[in-house]
Amino acid sequence: MEQVRIAICAPSTPLNRKEADQLIALASTSHPEAQLIFPDQCFAIEGHFAGNDELRASAFVSLANDPSIDAIWFARGGYGAARIADAIMEQMESPAHNKDYMGYSDGGNLLGALYKAGIGTQAHGPMPVDLRRDGGDAAVRRALDWLVRRERSALEPHVEKGQKYAAFNLMTMAMMVGTPLLPDLKNHVLMIEEVSEYLYAFDRALFNVTSHLAGQQLAGIRLGRVSEIPENDRPFGEDAEQITERWCKRYDIPYLGRADIGHDTENKVVPFGYIPD
Amino acid sequence: MEQVRIAICAPSTPLNRKEADQLIALASTSHPEAQLIFPDQCFAIEGHFAGNDELRASAFVSLANDPSIDAIWFARGGYGAARIADAIMEQMESPAHNKDYMGYSDGGNLLGALYKAGIGTQAHGPMPVDLRRDGGDAAVRRALDWLVRRERSALEPHVEKGQKYAAFNLMTMAMMVGTPLLPDLKNHVLMIEEVSEYLYAFDRALFNVTSHLAGQQLAGIRLGRVSEIPENDRPFGEDAEQITERWCKRYDIPYLGRADIGHDTENKVVPFGYIPD
Repeated sequence: MEQVRIAICAPSTPLNRKEADQLIALASTSHPEAQLIFPDQCFAIEGHFAGNDELRASAFVSLANDPSIDAIWFARGGYGAARIADAIMEQMESPAHNKDYMGYSDGGNLLGALYKAGIGTQAHGPMPVDLRRDGGDAAVRRALDWLVRRERSALEPHVEKGQKYAAFNLMTMAMMVGTPLLPDLKNHVLMIEEVSEYLYAFDRALFNVTSHLAGQQLAGIRLGRVSEIPENDRPFGEDAEQITERWCKRYDIPYLGRADIGHDTENKVVPFGYIPD
Repeated sequence: MEQVRIAICAPSTPLNRKEADQLIALASTSHPEAQLIFPDQCFAIEGHFAGNDELRASAFVSLANDPSIDAIWFARGGYGAARIADAIMEQMESPAHNKDYMGYSDGGNLLGALYKAGIGTQAHGPMPVDLRRDGGDAAVRRALDWLVRRERSALEPHVEKGQKYAAFNLMTMAMMVGTPLLPDLKNHVLMIEEVSEYLYAFDRALFNVTSHLAGQQLAGIRLGRVSEIPENDRPFGEDAEQITERWCKRYDIPYLGRADIGHDTENKVVPFGYIPD
């Protein structure tokens, strides 16, 4: 059985050591061919972040440039990847290209920047922190199914050969719009999901994203789950899918229906670009 | 005494009639030369908004194109102006140019679009809804001081002749980045303010804005008040000014210090572009 060496890195916020132990125990039975490597940086704490910008960037760079590592799995989202993305991209060397990168939420900043630069393969999918969820075992097993075995059952069910994809948390993506982090999405199906935002904020972020992508030949948008919507002092008047259909119609972007992604244990894997053969 | 006809319009969320009556009573003593006109649209309610997109846009357009109106004063922010800005801009006629437009918060979408199109004069300043605040009388009087009398005492104290300015709520501006609504800010001093956002979200939005404006020859950024910051589960590690100084340094934008603007009664007026003679 070929070993797959997966390094966990926390470009945003930290895990704790108990979570690392849980993940190692889980993988040892379900995916014994996976070697999970947890550098200390995953557990560093500085204010909001898993260590300061320099520590997070240097941890990512040294793992990406290590030829013995097959994949970098983002530990957790939260916020912080955008602050170090450009420093990381400036230091990527040849071994960084032969690597998988997986995560979601705030990690989308790095997935987008790596995809734009053509460095490695990127996938929007579950992270170690998903173990905190009820039933989170299934989510991290699904991520390992893809990282270690390329099991098609881990993929978002609408992902098809011959079509390019990208997937982002909507707010994360809105904050990439107009910056060098956002890749060219021409001919891509874009899947988006959201969590913990008021519907007016969802609408606003989708204005930003669809207005920006108008005329850029997006193949279409699929809407993942929009969860934990806070209750506002008055109803918004539309649900998340109605909002998405309206903006797509307004900017002449095909709305393709729902996507099986979200901030939850059912979050399926969406590889960026074409899926590998 | 020359009469100044000020029409109130609600491109985002509604006022109530009692607030309109309060404002008319207040202005009748402090600014008797102001005629305040409250079309019914200001009080319309449809879901989140002061009427649906068509109603809000048509109310704005008919007031802007009315040569008997001297100024359009945005009633309130909240969210909604971005949804109608392009429809409004397509219908602006000659009388819309001889007009003042004032508001802030979500109204920044229209201030930005009008400024970009060179239609009328725009100012970031208090709105009728500020009457809801303790001491809000002072805020709306300040707005009227500028709209009706061009009193310099109403201006943000750093505003100087011969320098171009723009001012935005940061989140509003971040959602304009990468869309056709954001004007060219070359050689402008940009003033920003924020309310009710976590510091990580402030940091994220400022990444978006400063990364986008990098290399665009901004004259500098001034930071207004950042208020009602929700408490997060852990401290961010920097305050709003430290965050702003860091991003400005990172993207080589001069940080010029604080600005006397914010979601509060002290919010001073910032005209867009050069101040009038």
